[in-house]
Amino acid sequence: MIRAGVVGASGLAGGELIRLITQHPELELTFLGGSSHVGRRPAELHANLRVDLGLTVQPVTEAVADQVDVLFLATPAPVSAQLAEQLADKVPAIVDLSGAFRIRTPELHDRWYPKVQRRTELADRFVYGVPELIRDQLVGAPLISLPGCYATALTLGLAPLTLGLGLDLKTVVVDGKSGSSGGGLQLRTADLHPFRSGAIAPYAPTGHRHAAEVGDFLVRAKSGSIASLSMSAYGVSHVRGLLTSSYVFTDAEVDQRELQRAYMRFYKGSRFVRVRRHNETLIPVPDPQAVLGSNFCDVTVLHDPEGGRIVVLSALDNLVKGAAGQAVQVANIRFGLPEETGLTMQPVMPA
Amino acid sequence: MIRAGVVGASGLAGGELIRLITQHPELELTFLGGSSHVGRRPAELHANLRVDLGLTVQPVTEAVADQVDVLFLATPAPVSAQLAEQLADKVPAIVDLSGAFRIRTPELHDRWYPKVQRRTELADRFVYGVPELIRDQLVGAPLISLPGCYATALTLGLAPLTLGLGLDLKTVVVDGKSGSSGGGLQLRTADLHPFRSGAIAPYAPTGHRHAAEVGDFLVRAKSGSIASLSMSAYGVSHVRGLLTSSYVFTDAEVDQRELQRAYMRFYKGSRFVRVRRHNETLIPVPDPQAVLGSNFCDVTVLHDPEGGRIVVLSALDNLVKGAAGQAVQVANIRFGLPEETGLTMQPVMPA
Amino acid sequence: MIRAGVVGASGLAGGELIRLITQHPELELTFLGGSSHVGRRPAELHANLRVDLGLTVQPVTEAVADQVDVLFLATPAPVSAQLAEQLADKVPAIVDLSGAFRIRTPELHDRWYPKVQRRTELADRFVYGVPELIRDQLVGAPLISLPGCYATALTLGLAPLTLGLGLDLKTVVVDGKSGSSGGGLQLRTADLHPFRSGAIAPYAPTGHRHAAEVGDFLVRAKSGSIASLSMSAYGVSHVRGLLTSSYVFTDAEVDQRELQRAYMRFYKGSRFVRVRRHNETLIPVPDPQAVLGSNFCDVTVLHDPEGGRIVVLSALDNLVKGAAGQAVQVANIRFGLPEETGLTMQPVMPA
Amino acid sequence: MIRAGVVGASGLAGGELIRLITQHPELELTFLGGSSHVGRRPAELHANLRVDLGLTVQPVTEAVADQVDVLFLATPAPVSAQLAEQLADKVPAIVDLSGAFRIRTPELHDRWYPKVQRRTELADRFVYGVPELIRDQLVGAPLISLPGCYATALTLGLAPLTLGLGLDLKTVVVDGKSGSSGGGLQLRTADLHPFRSGAIAPYAPTGHRHAAEVGDFLVRAKSGSIASLSMSAYGVSHVRGLLTSSYVFTDAEVDQRELQRAYMRFYKGSRFVRVRRHNETLIPVPDPQAVLGSNFCDVTVLHDPEGGRIVVLSALDNLVKGAAGQAVQVANIRFGLPEETGLTMQPVMPA
Repeated sequence: MIRAGVVGASGLAGGELIRLITQHPELELTFLGGSSHVGRRPAELHANLRVDLGLTVQPVTEAVADQVDVLFLATPAPVSAQLAEQLADKVPAIVDLSGAFRIRTPELHDRWYPKVQRRTELADRFVYGVPELIRDQLVGAPLISLPGCYATALTLGLAPLTLGLGLDLKTVVVDGKSGSSGGGLQLRTADLHPFRSGAIAPYAPTGHRHAAEVGDFLVRAKSGSIASLSMSAYGVSHVRGLLTSSYVFTDAEVDQRELQRAYMRFYKGSRFVRVRRHNETLIPVPDPQAVLGSNFCDVTVLHDPEGGRIVVLSALDNLVKGAAGQAVQVANIRFGLPEETGLTMQPVMPA
Repeated sequence: MIRAGVVGASGLAGGELIRLITQHPELELTFLGGSSHVGRRPAELHANLRVDLGLTVQPVTEAVADQVDVLFLATPAPVSAQLAEQLADKVPAIVDLSGAFRIRTPELHDRWYPKVQRRTELADRFVYGVPELIRDQLVGAPLISLPGCYATALTLGLAPLTLGLGLDLKTVVVDGKSGSSGGGLQLRTADLHPFRSGAIAPYAPTGHRHAAEVGDFLVRAKSGSIASLSMSAYGVSHVRGLLTSSYVFTDAEVDQRELQRAYMRFYKGSRFVRVRRHNETLIPVPDPQAVLGSNFCDVTVLHDPEGGRIVVLSALDNLVKGAAGQAVQVANIRFGLPEETGLTMQPVMPA
Repeated sequence: MIRAGVVGASGLAGGELIRLITQHPELELTFLGGSSHVGRRPAELHANLRVDLGLTVQPVTEAVADQVDVLFLATPAPVSAQLAEQLADKVPAIVDLSGAFRIRTPELHDRWYPKVQRRTELADRFVYGVPELIRDQLVGAPLISLPGCYATALTLGLAPLTLGLGLDLKTVVVDGKSGSSGGGLQLRTADLHPFRSGAIAPYAPTGHRHAAEVGDFLVRAKSGSIASLSMSAYGVSHVRGLLTSSYVFTDAEVDQRELQRAYMRFYKGSRFVRVRRHNETLIPVPDPQAVLGSNFCDVTVLHDPEGGRIVVLSALDNLVKGAAGQAVQVANIRFGLPEETGLTMQPVMPA
Repeated sequence: MIRAGVVGASGLAGGELIRLITQHPELELTFLGGSSHVGRRPAELHANLRVDLGLTVQPVTEAVADQVDVLFLATPAPVSAQLAEQLADKVPAIVDLSGAFRIRTPELHDRWYPKVQRRTELADRFVYGVPELIRDQLVGAPLISLPGCYATALTLGLAPLTLGLGLDLKTVVVDGKSGSSGGGLQLRTADLHPFRSGAIAPYAPTGHRHAAEVGDFLVRAKSGSIASLSMSAYGVSHVRGLLTSSYVFTDAEVDQRELQRAYMRFYKGSRFVRVRRHNETLIPVPDPQAVLGSNFCDVTVLHDPEGGRIVVLSALDNLVKGAAGQAVQVANIRFGLPEETGLTMQPVMPA
């Protein structure tokens, strides 16, 4: 058994990590860390998880290095940055779910994470990226920085165009729609049920740091290019799951059949990416309700000749494929397990 | 009192018309028409409307001409087309809420309304458009075709750029997000609560006929231009209200202050359009929850220099400003009443 | 015009009072009070209310006596208690929406409002009760204590049995179901959207102070009796509106027809109580969605011979008939206006 | 591997059975039956289940006896009755999820299932009941009738009082609250999203057949009694999960500590029943959101001395513990597997 620790155990991603590790045949939960709720059992913090693990939340010290083989940091970026610095050479594997080490371009990091001091050398040691695209780099990697939830959806949606077909994209306009669990638990009036229920909240209308990540990552890619990428993000009236709509303008000539084939080919060996035709099932897909609770990312590509564009839609569960599930997936790869180990649950629908 | 009739009295827009006319000081409901639910009282069809109007749903015949001064057609487009033909010269005023007479360009009409036979001469007699832009044409007009709910939001959002500032827009990418009352009552599995609740349903990812309307209308405008307009539409997890996001690319140089001023100026005399700063209140606006039940359309314009674009957001209640409320507003203008008569209710929030 | 002030202007009931007073033909808003958000305009606090009243939130001092004819206290009970003491003989009319002066039996007050010091003499000067039952007492009354939202629904549901038919009720079991706006705005984790959406939260399973109110009030009634009244309350997954289910056991022999007639008769002159048959319309009623935004309380009585009981269901909008609307209604009566003045809006549905 | 067939594969319970069987280590899906959607793959019917099982929906004939070891009937009661008659002696095990064989008392059956012809002899061969209470009877049983979703919650809630403590209950008043997936997929206006979202729909205010089941079952029990059991049922605004509130009046003297211990003891070996204290975690429990997607039933018992009653709350996922999960659980027991096989998933929350 691989010994796993979770820091940030009382948060949404922390709870989801506990859920997934508890169900995992090869991971054993041996440490729960956090600065709030110290001394509490998981069952007191997460009403769904009535499990007795014999663990309570503890402050993180260097002693954790003796207790875990892999440490998941489900912490705010400034906390992750500090913990990573402290533990980088002591814990065999650190998987950071925050944004602390996602962006490599210094100006971009400072623009989007002004409160997280840049640690250039340490950042360079982190492997970043959606596992479907950088699997080889993850094997044995000691430090892994997980993409943001929107960034995962977006990258999985665009990669077949740039990395797969090698297209040069002139303009990519991204519209992101997310449920209320996307922003973590913050005690703000706007996040109370009366105001979030029924809302279409334009909370980031002129840019989102997850888009900056994607630009930063795909720009370093070997083939294809994106000249302009802009994003707007909205909170809608459900809890779990997000959809990114990418409106792609390119001079390249493509058609629906070619696009569909390219996406199928690109994700042939990737069991967590489901390339779906828009009308293949009872309801139009992709729709995040169809991946709820699972590690799938559903992707649909549509040629829109009237609009002179390609429409790429990606849906995922922001707490699973967008956070805890992907964290377990990269840990699986890191330790040489089949990447789907412990992640074979089907989506729960309707819910 | 102006005598008003509603055809399609059992539908969502029909019910909303009854609600608004019942509250209107100068309109009197004298006829309820429909082909289903004949003989039923409104209270049997609309659980909210426990009013006794002494009316039941009746089939529409030419006799209606003696009973009403204005007839609101809240009927499917093919039915509206037929009724309009039958009654055009008999009823003093017809306000059609359907798409039957919205699009003037023949190919566009046939492309988006293949089941509605084109009646070119009759269509030419209809005044079309959002009242804020064509008020003068409505005074005394016998035939009025109301824009679609998305088209109203979109036109009100873009008009200050094209008609106001006279800008030439290169590319406009529209992302529309709507609640479940946007599509009328259809007994389809995908519209049942279990599947629509929690959904982000990409139901029209590569085009929407309301966008065709807008293009058709603004193209005929005297100033400004739109070279390319594409739209995608999504159903989200609430009931009432929509938001359109317009991502506008133009070579014109503008800044936030100039845009804000232009929008304020353009809608100075229009009490139903509220030009709002994104952060002016507790929650980010515009958000359709902040206009629920009212005839307002909230519009926000944002310069996004990083994205090289202008972001225009418009929110309205699809059953009020997007349908019944706008119908009453145009009828008010048609009959020389102040346009806000009977429409001064404030939005209900939170709900 | 009657000059009205609202204290607690930034809360949910405060916002609703502003909405209703703004629409009221005889009330003029002349004062906004509060201890937080001092200096803010209503539009900054309530995203729906983009109105310029020339008012900002101000601390309450005795000077308010010169500015208003009626003062609505939409404040927490301890604040209301203090303000009432301070202003009771200075402001012509005070309408308190809190629980400070609702319960007359000393032990009951102390049991349910331990943090609100009992002011017996002052409390005795307050008129308490649902206006439909105590109209006469309201005319000219200087001090009015409004029932709680659940208490209003419950009392309107039970009064025709006790006060109307003079029945002696052996056991009344009440199950209350409310949306998230029922508890005011509190920054608690359990009230964040992710946890309240989809919930059936048993937040008061063994008792609710609104039931204590009802018992206290109906016990003092001239006819009929209630031997045992117990209540449990639940938060469900919508925002606005509540339903109380009263399961009534009595030795009296009654049947459906008699009950229906008794309810119709009892509420004959009460335009805000709609006595409804369970199947009279498209959806089963009463359902709070059918009264949303309005001052109606829908009541249905059902004889259940198999269950040996009477089932009484009452639905209302907790922010209107359960708070701000009822406050305006009692103020109307207090000042000799028709009780429906400014309250004639029809419910908004679906929403 | 045990070969399993699902009839009613296109419905909600059918889809859930496919989800669970696909994840089950000892069950293999070998047959999908139904009268509609013949020829369709599961992925075409259930947007979440993008699995290729090599199966399509087929009409049920006696040939199914060669294809399955266990046949799950997720069909309407009349269809189940007919299929059971046809296949009872041919298929090794039939698990019926419908109400066809639940009620044994003839008059009660005819009262609640008037459209299902009574088949007394066949019915007597069916084992009925919640597995926690009748485990032994299930081993090797050829015919199993699964309790209704409400009946499961209710029985698990009351059994420790009657069967455990041997109490005689005078009056039990049950209030059931369920999401929209509780009633199956029916194309009715009241079930469309606009009308079900935000609703508290009193759809069965004076009785529910699931309560009849419980009475019928517990009356035959060896110890304890229920003199009067009445139920009312409501549809609330979420999709999945139900809560039953049982308000229990008894002359027996009990206290909180004794009740808590009795419940803990009664469910000691039952891993799917979680006896929970009301305040043991972040949100009040039991709440169906805390069991979503899992086979748990959460039960809380509360002594309410002020109300002179015991309050018992039970929450479960109506599609899992209330249907497909319990079906798999009884099949596990039937075939000698540990009852939790394939059912160890933790609840998904928040969702």
